[in-house]
Amino acid sequence: MAPIANPRVVFIERLTSGLPVAGKHFVLDTSRTIDIENVPLNGGYLTKTLVLSPEPAMRERMRDPSVPSYTTTYTLGASIVAFAVVVVVRSEKESIKVGEYMYGQTPWEGYTVQPYTEGRITFKPEEWAPGTFDMDSLALQVVPDPKGTYPLSKYTNIMGTPGLTAFVGMEGIIEGKEGETLFVSSGASGVGSLVIQLAKMNGLRVIASAGSDAKVEYMRSLGVEVPFNYNKESYESVLSKHGPIHAFWVLQDNVGAEALDAALDASVAHGRFAICGTVATDNVQFEERYRLKNAFQIMKKRITIRGFIVPDLIPQFGGQFFQEVPALVAQGKLQSEETIIGEKWEDVPEAIIKMMSSGHGHAGKPVILVAQQ
Amino acid sequence: MAPIANPRVVFIERLTSGLPVAGKHFVLDTSRTIDIENVPLNGGYLTKTLVLSPEPAMRERMRDPSVPSYTTTYTLGASIVAFAVVVVVRSEKESIKVGEYMYGQTPWEGYTVQPYTEGRITFKPEEWAPGTFDMDSLALQVVPDPKGTYPLSKYTNIMGTPGLTAFVGMEGIIEGKEGETLFVSSGASGVGSLVIQLAKMNGLRVIASAGSDAKVEYMRSLGVEVPFNYNKESYESVLSKHGPIHAFWVLQDNVGAEALDAALDASVAHGRFAICGTVATDNVQFEERYRLKNAFQIMKKRITIRGFIVPDLIPQFGGQFFQEVPALVAQGKLQSEETIIGEKWEDVPEAIIKMMSSGHGHAGKPVILVAQQ
Repeated sequence: MAPIANPRVVFIERLTSGLPVAGKHFVLDTSRTIDIENVPLNGGYLTKTLVLSPEPAMRERMRDPSVPSYTTTYTLGASIVAFAVVVVVRSEKESIKVGEYMYGQTPWEGYTVQPYTEGRITFKPEEWAPGTFDMDSLALQVVPDPKGTYPLSKYTNIMGTPGLTAFVGMEGIIEGKEGETLFVSSGASGVGSLVIQLAKMNGLRVIASAGSDAKVEYMRSLGVEVPFNYNKESYESVLSKHGPIHAFWVLQDNVGAEALDAALDASVAHGRFAICGTVATDNVQFEERYRLKNAFQIMKKRITIRGFIVPDLIPQFGGQFFQEVPALVAQGKLQSEETIIGEKWEDVPEAIIKMMSSGHGHAGKPVILVAQQ
Repeated sequence: MAPIANPRVVFIERLTSGLPVAGKHFVLDTSRTIDIENVPLNGGYLTKTLVLSPEPAMRERMRDPSVPSYTTTYTLGASIVAFAVVVVVRSEKESIKVGEYMYGQTPWEGYTVQPYTEGRITFKPEEWAPGTFDMDSLALQVVPDPKGTYPLSKYTNIMGTPGLTAFVGMEGIIEGKEGETLFVSSGASGVGSLVIQLAKMNGLRVIASAGSDAKVEYMRSLGVEVPFNYNKESYESVLSKHGPIHAFWVLQDNVGAEALDAALDASVAHGRFAICGTVATDNVQFEERYRLKNAFQIMKKRITIRGFIVPDLIPQFGGQFFQEVPALVAQGKLQSEETIIGEKWEDVPEAIIKMMSSGHGHAGKPVILVAQQ
């Protein structure tokens, strides 16, 4: 077979502020080809990329490496590396079989000889701010073949980092007890919808917000007692009426904003707040930032606010996730919704921006289906 | 002996916002007398009040009981109840001897038949927001006679709630390790100066701020490596130059303000922030509140911010405090500074306001010496 096109999303300019721009910071490069039958594997294996999972951490990886953050950065001129589901098409590695599905960090390109080297950070902790996480360490892992039980995109969601985020944060920070009330902002998002389901399974009452009536209905279908549209009702009015809350799951577009303020006011003593994302706040200009009214409640109510990323809690709760969650998914007790925001490589650059600007307008985890098997 | 004057500070109007006003919310009442030789004790004991310890929690106790907070409230028409050092002048109770010193919550009046009943809240948890602390439960406790080794006012400071606050917060939240850097705001205050000493004993490097050059010198004398006057140097410039910080002890006049913002930016990954006071922020109007720039760092750096009051951590660390701290004080290894902001009952109302407005202008814990023995 002759070489075929091997499109890739290449990182070409570092981000200094705000949101990245497709075509400026990264671009689709269609100039490469690959001979999938003959490309040397050198003892490795060849994967075909099927489902891309754009996530907020990608923005962090576009910064200059001199700026401290929780993750390593991207390499200029190399493919963007992020989460995806792939299928093995050739293998010289005994433990990896052709036809197996894998999920993890991989270059966003059509086909990749694995383990990938282009764009991979050679991680030396001393070269990074303490606590910087080596994102490339989340290497591809073999995942079970769903055999049609559910789409492969589940691995980007309930079986992937959003599921892990929800699970380890609920176990390690929220620690909700039956009868307590949890407030979830962005409850229709990938992580938010999983947090809601885990809370309901544990007997919690849930208040959850989202930005459209369709999302409100989706949250209601998940069992949320008080779902509301923050464009129609204020956080303050809903939480003061339906609170108090025992815990708050703070999702990315609410840190420092009205939701946090209202939640501080509605919290019981010893409330637990978990923060796992911040994209939108990063993009707000200083003069437009919300003035926090209720910071004093952190002390008065002895609230604990904890920021986290999945790797912080994996050592404690990762094993439990892999024991419990796949079974719950198989039994239909945990569900997730994915929103397809792109269906070909040409869609990818704009889809990344859509994800970051929270502008895809649909419930569920955004995914891009770049190839069929 | 004929009855003598028994002055008291009586609570006469609830506080709805801002700072209380002497003469409006509470007033000195000199109309009462007491016959100290003949007043019936009913099996109790009579105490003479010596040293008053005005503390921020008094402001919370002046609110309406329908407003949730961490403490119970005051009773209109009754004496203000707060911390003081007293001496026992008569006793019908076997375990309490004449001449013993006691420290704890007591009505602010010249003499009191104990246990006091006037103004004491009969605490029923179901009548208060969950987590409300029954302040009256911090009843008078016998303390060792210092026999001139140190003034009695130490019981309001290093041996009292400021000492407990510093100790339990350092043990339970900051958990500083040798070689780490701690930032302390209001480092010349009662709690701040104790936090600094505990940090230095544990081998931490300390950055500390205060509002005057005299306070800067005091902090330097405690061993602070980087003491600074926040009126002369910005939090941001000092912390970016001398950071990063591993932990931040947030004192009352900085929550939500520049210090927090700069500390979020200067924190390492997994920084620990302890918040134990908020008075000044309560008094800032909404339009003047500082716009937090760096809230997103809570997630990026996976920072834990925890508000606390002493009773939250007493079960875990109270025993250790009483085992370790008195010995360290006796050995001169821990010191505290008290500032006398009043020397007679007539000074008390204004002294309360001074304490709350952080306007006493001196280093150390404010105390009022209302009587000699």
